[in-house]
Amino acid sequence: MFTTTVMPRFYETDAFGHVNNTVVTGWFETAREPIFRIFAPSMEVGELSLILARIEIDFVAQIHYGHEVTLTTAIEKIGNSSFTVLHEAWQQGRKAASGRAVQVYFDFETESSGPLPEHDRARLEEHLVAESKE
Amino acid sequence: MFTTTVMPRFYETDAFGHVNNTVVTGWFETAREPIFRIFAPSMEVGELSLILARIEIDFVAQIHYGHEVTLTTAIEKIGNSSFTVLHEAWQQGRKAASGRAVQVYFDFETESSGPLPEHDRARLEEHLVAESKE
Amino acid sequence: MFTTTVMPRFYETDAFGHVNNTVVTGWFETAREPIFRIFAPSMEVGELSLILARIEIDFVAQIHYGHEVTLTTAIEKIGNSSFTVLHEAWQQGRKAASGRAVQVYFDFETESSGPLPEHDRARLEEHLVAESKE
Amino acid sequence: MFTTTVMPRFYETDAFGHVNNTVVTGWFETAREPIFRIFAPSMEVGELSLILARIEIDFVAQIHYGHEVTLTTAIEKIGNSSFTVLHEAWQQGRKAASGRAVQVYFDFETESSGPLPEHDRARLEEHLVAESKE
Repeated sequence: MFTTTVMPRFYETDAFGHVNNTVVTGWFETAREPIFRIFAPSMEVGELSLILARIEIDFVAQIHYGHEVTLTTAIEKIGNSSFTVLHEAWQQGRKAASGRAVQVYFDFETESSGPLPEHDRARLEEHLVAESKE
Repeated sequence: MFTTTVMPRFYETDAFGHVNNTVVTGWFETAREPIFRIFAPSMEVGELSLILARIEIDFVAQIHYGHEVTLTTAIEKIGNSSFTVLHEAWQQGRKAASGRAVQVYFDFETESSGPLPEHDRARLEEHLVAESKE
Repeated sequence: MFTTTVMPRFYETDAFGHVNNTVVTGWFETAREPIFRIFAPSMEVGELSLILARIEIDFVAQIHYGHEVTLTTAIEKIGNSSFTVLHEAWQQGRKAASGRAVQVYFDFETESSGPLPEHDRARLEEHLVAESKE
Repeated sequence: MFTTTVMPRFYETDAFGHVNNTVVTGWFETAREPIFRIFAPSMEVGELSLILARIEIDFVAQIHYGHEVTLTTAIEKIGNSSFTVLHEAWQQGRKAASGRAVQVYFDFETESSGPLPEHDRARLEEHLVAESKE
């Protein structure tokens, strides 16, 4: 499991006085960067053979300005050409959001998806957690 | 069904050269504004008794800079205190993304959810579509 | 002069209850798109030989959610290899912000700036306004 | 002088392959948070008696994805009811951007600006740098 910490930025709040929900989508993308590094160690964009197929987020509690948020990232499921990432966002000891992202291995040159390379799959397996039942 | 048109903004693109996926979360929030107006006709933030409980988005095709995107918004399901909104994003005659948002009726004064008021429920029903089977 | 209309999006507000100031930078970028089209008519990113050298914005009045904002774009000054764009943002008959952007003509292949091509300069001149004295 | 470190987020890049310029406006807002804490130690939004009157940013070099950016924040000038903040953004030993923000002391109850309270002014003076000549 990977852990990333973000501090809410003022422009990420909205008129309700809390962090806007749409911001969490971006935070979870940021929390997937350790996964991106598995596929593109140099972080060169051209090497990153992944596309995002699906996201889902459950918003559990309001996220407040002024307090750090811890984002966790694990692998829930590995398929032939895709895998599911599991995220949680915690603030002040409370879960504020949880979500999933389905990433597909994609060859930008042939413009088609393909099987996950073995060494990338092995690296993902190190971060596999038991599938959530909810 | 409501229809909203957005033109991708340059800062909404990312280094892959297309509109970044996280942007669609924000566009769908914007596409829900006609729904917000049902609950808060004046668009005063203090009157908007809705919280977002869940989102899900399937990314079907890349969204390109330089071409309008049409966002559709309909009601898929109405529960006791919540309802599910169905969204699609279309560009150049092709579906680029579809998604759902679950909104909960919430009283910010008592800090608890409650049944949808009858007249709001009636307005939502006008935009109800047959539930998708996928 | 070019005119662009934007409707504030809910996620663009902040905890003060108005549109966050940083959003205006993005709106003015969007308001410069007619200028970008002069240099890259097809709006292909690879053809857009402009870089942004400087921005300045004066925030005159709060921008409210729920009301359209009109953005104006004109050319204030044309130099040898750069030009200055003048922007204003108006809401409900009141000027809310004004700003400038200095764009430099840049050849991404040679990675250096160069003189503005004559036909682009001529197109810019059509939108030239008297230089503001403030 | 205050120092803040940010890691560019993937959604902050644009189709040119670098961090979009509009993002820097948000980073500099974030870099001003230590200043906000002088005025509102608890970081409660309702206590923050400051409005942003003006920003300016010079973009000196492209900001790349994958490398940390250090933001510096100092006070350049203190007036009667306003002060000027000086920012720089550095990446890999190179200055990428510099900017200013003019903040005005503002009483949200009376909706008018007023003189900076003495103890806030004293705190700002601790971070005063010699005014830049450029």
